[in-house]
Amino acid sequence: MSDVARIGLLGRGTVGGAFAELIAERGDEIAAAAGRRPELAGVLRRGEGDFDQILERSEIVVELIGGTDPAREYVTRALRAGRHVITANKQLIAQYGDELFDAAREAGVQLRFEAAAAGVVPVIRVIQESLAATELTKVFGIVNGTTNFILTEMAASGASYPEALARAQELGYAEADPSEDVNGADAAAKMAILARLAFHTSVRLADVTYEGIEGIKPDDLAYAKELGLTLKLLGVAERVDGGISVRVFPCFLYRGHPLAPVEGPFNAVMVEAPAITEITMSGPGAGGPETATAVLGDLVSILAGKAPVHQPRHRLDVVADVRSSFYLHLEVADRPGVLAHVADVLGRNEVSVRSVVQRGLGDDARLVMVMHEGPEARFYSALDEIATLDFVRATPRAIRVIEEEFV
Amino acid sequence: MSDVARIGLLGRGTVGGAFAELIAERGDEIAAAAGRRPELAGVLRRGEGDFDQILERSEIVVELIGGTDPAREYVTRALRAGRHVITANKQLIAQYGDELFDAAREAGVQLRFEAAAAGVVPVIRVIQESLAATELTKVFGIVNGTTNFILTEMAASGASYPEALARAQELGYAEADPSEDVNGADAAAKMAILARLAFHTSVRLADVTYEGIEGIKPDDLAYAKELGLTLKLLGVAERVDGGISVRVFPCFLYRGHPLAPVEGPFNAVMVEAPAITEITMSGPGAGGPETATAVLGDLVSILAGKAPVHQPRHRLDVVADVRSSFYLHLEVADRPGVLAHVADVLGRNEVSVRSVVQRGLGDDARLVMVMHEGPEARFYSALDEIATLDFVRATPRAIRVIEEEFV
Repeated sequence: MSDVARIGLLGRGTVGGAFAELIAERGDEIAAAAGRRPELAGVLRRGEGDFDQILERSEIVVELIGGTDPAREYVTRALRAGRHVITANKQLIAQYGDELFDAAREAGVQLRFEAAAAGVVPVIRVIQESLAATELTKVFGIVNGTTNFILTEMAASGASYPEALARAQELGYAEADPSEDVNGADAAAKMAILARLAFHTSVRLADVTYEGIEGIKPDDLAYAKELGLTLKLLGVAERVDGGISVRVFPCFLYRGHPLAPVEGPFNAVMVEAPAITEITMSGPGAGGPETATAVLGDLVSILAGKAPVHQPRHRLDVVADVRSSFYLHLEVADRPGVLAHVADVLGRNEVSVRSVVQRGLGDDARLVMVMHEGPEARFYSALDEIATLDFVRATPRAIRVIEEEFV
Repeated sequence: MSDVARIGLLGRGTVGGAFAELIAERGDEIAAAAGRRPELAGVLRRGEGDFDQILERSEIVVELIGGTDPAREYVTRALRAGRHVITANKQLIAQYGDELFDAAREAGVQLRFEAAAAGVVPVIRVIQESLAATELTKVFGIVNGTTNFILTEMAASGASYPEALARAQELGYAEADPSEDVNGADAAAKMAILARLAFHTSVRLADVTYEGIEGIKPDDLAYAKELGLTLKLLGVAERVDGGISVRVFPCFLYRGHPLAPVEGPFNAVMVEAPAITEITMSGPGAGGPETATAVLGDLVSILAGKAPVHQPRHRLDVVADVRSSFYLHLEVADRPGVLAHVADVLGRNEVSVRSVVQRGLGDDARLVMVMHEGPEARFYSALDEIATLDFVRATPRAIRVIEEEFV
C-alpha cells in the first residue's frame, strides 16, 4: 500500500505548479484512494531538465507544456516506451489524437486528458466511462471561459467588446494574445475531442467550423435582452443525417435554457441521448488548482487500476447546530406594534432580518420575513417565543433559505 | 474480444426490464467499449427463478429488486461468492453500506451503485473517481425528482400540495404511496450515501435529519416569488466544525443560484471544494431507461477493468447544411415598405420569422428579427440577397439562436 509511483512532470507553469503542489499535499489521500503514493521523479522546465532522463525514471508522464511541439514528440515517445500519459493539451489531442491513441493502444498503456476539454468539469470521464455504451446524439455547451466572461461582462455592463476583453485580461481570464480564445479556435479543438469520444469516430480539427465573438456589438445584446435572449459562444457536436456536424458559433439562448444562467469564466456541457434525456455538467473551465485537480483525477484512476471500493478513512462527528437563513411566515392580528414585537424577539435572540413583506387581510395580516444566516438554535429559540405571542393566529411556518448566488 | 460476461439479474420491474433491453440492444457497443459482451445468465422475478442457480451461473450480479429484504442477503451472498455487484438500491447502501463494502473488499470484487443516488446524473463516479483525492467541503442538491416536480407544479400553477401530488401520480412521477419521497426519507438515504463517499467516513441513516414538503402552502410560494425566491427540497452534506452535517429540508433559493432553474422531475447535485470552486451536475433523477443507463455505465466499467482507450469504431461524414434559427440585425433607411421587402426575401427563401423588433433612429432604423429554425443554406441565401438591397445601410449581422427551452 505504501508503494511509490514515479511521475515525470513536463512543464511547470500555472497548472504544472499547482499539480506539483497537489501531489505533495494530497499524498496520503492519493495513497488511500489508489493504493500508491505519487512522487515527482523529475520536472522538465523551459531550458532545465532532460526529457530522456525523466522518461527513464518515470512510470507515468504528465504533459503540461501546452502547444504541439515538442509536446507531440514527448508524449509519443512516452507512450511507445510503455508509460501511461496524462495531458491537459487540447491542441495535441485534437490534432494528433489518431496517432496518439494508436500508440497508447499498441503499448497497452492509458492516455488520459480530462483537463483538455472543459477544465475540471468531468465531461470526458462521463462520456468515456458512464456513457461508454450509450448512443449519444448531441454534445454541446460553453467550453471557453474567456469568451463567456467577455459576453457576461458585455451583457451586464453594456461594455463594448474591446472594453470587456481588457477587463478579462486585467482579471487573468484572457491572455495577452487572446486570439485563439476569442476567434473560436480553442473551443473548436475541444469540440473535436468531445465529438471524437461521443461518436466513436475520428474527427480532424479541419472538420470543425468555427466563428468567434469579435464581431459582437453591445447593440446585439441590448436588442436580444428585449427578445428574452442571452448570448453564449456555443460548441455543438451532433449527429445529422447519418453523419455528424461539429461547429462553434456565438448563439442566443432563450432564458429557460439550462446553459443561459452559466456566467463568467464557467464552462458547461450538455450530453443528450434518448436513453438519458440530457445530462448537464458545469464548473470552472480554467484556473491552476482547478485544472490540476482534473489532472489529479486522471492520475488516481491510473494508479487505482480498477474502481475504488469505499473504505471509511475518517471518523467525523455529526454536528447538530448548523447555520442557516430562514423564511418566516406569520399569520398575525392586524394591529399596531406587531412588527415591532416580533422584531424585538428576533433581536434579543440575535437573529437579523434581511427582508419583510407585510400585508393586511381584514382582521388578519400576514407577516413574511427572510432572515440573514445565523445559528439554527437561536432562530428556533426565537420561533418558540414568537409562537406563544397572543397576536399570532396560527402555527408559524419556517423554511430555510440559501442566500448565496451563483458567481 | 468476443468473450461473454454472464450477468445474473435480480428483479425485472421498470428498471430491470429496461436494463435487460439495453444489454441486448447495445451488445456490440458494450463489447467494443469493454472487450466483452454481456449475456443474461438468469433473471429472478417475484415467485420465479432460483437465486442459488442464478448466482452459480453468473460472474456479475445486478440487483434491481429494491427494498432491503431479501436484497441485503442476495447482495451479501453474491459478494462473498466473489461476484461483482451492481445495485440501484439506495436503502441497501445507505443502511448496510459498512457491511457490504467490507464484504466487497474482502472478496476483492467491485460494488457499484451509480443509480442509487441521483438516477443517471453521474455524481457517484465523479466523487469517487474524478475527485477521489480532492478534499470536498460540501455536496448538496436536489436528489428527489418527485418532490421537485410537485414544487415546480405548485409554483407554476398555484396548485395546493394535494393537487400537485395528484398530478405527479397521474404522470407517473409519484408512487401510489408517495410517503418516502414527500417526507424526505428517500433524499435522506441518498445524502447518507453521498456524504459517506465525499468525506470518506461511515454515515448511518440515523445521522441524517430530514423534513419533507407536506407542509408547504401555495401561500409560501406566492410570498416567496415576491422576494425573488424559488423553493426546492435540498439535501446538504457538509463539513462543519471538524465534523459533518447531513440534512434534507425544503429551502428557498435566490434566482441566481445554479439549482434554482432545475425544474420538474430533474435532479441536480453540486460538489464544492477550494480546489475546484464548484461542479454542478443535473439530469433526470428517475425513469426506466435513464436509471438502466446508469447501471449500464457501471457494468461497462466492471467489464473494462481499466480505462478505455479511444478507438474509432465508426466512419461518420461531416454534414455541411444543418438547421438553425437566426437572429438578424439590419440597419435600414427609415421608410415605408422596408419590412415588407425584407419579409418577402425571407419568404421566397422559405425562412419563417418568429419575432420582430423595429425601431426608428432619425433617418436610420434598426430592424431586428428572430427566425424559426430551418436549413442554414436557405437563410444564408436570403441574407446574401438582403445585403444587396439599397435601403440596407450596413453589413447585416446574423447570430444563431437556440429555440428549445429546458423541460
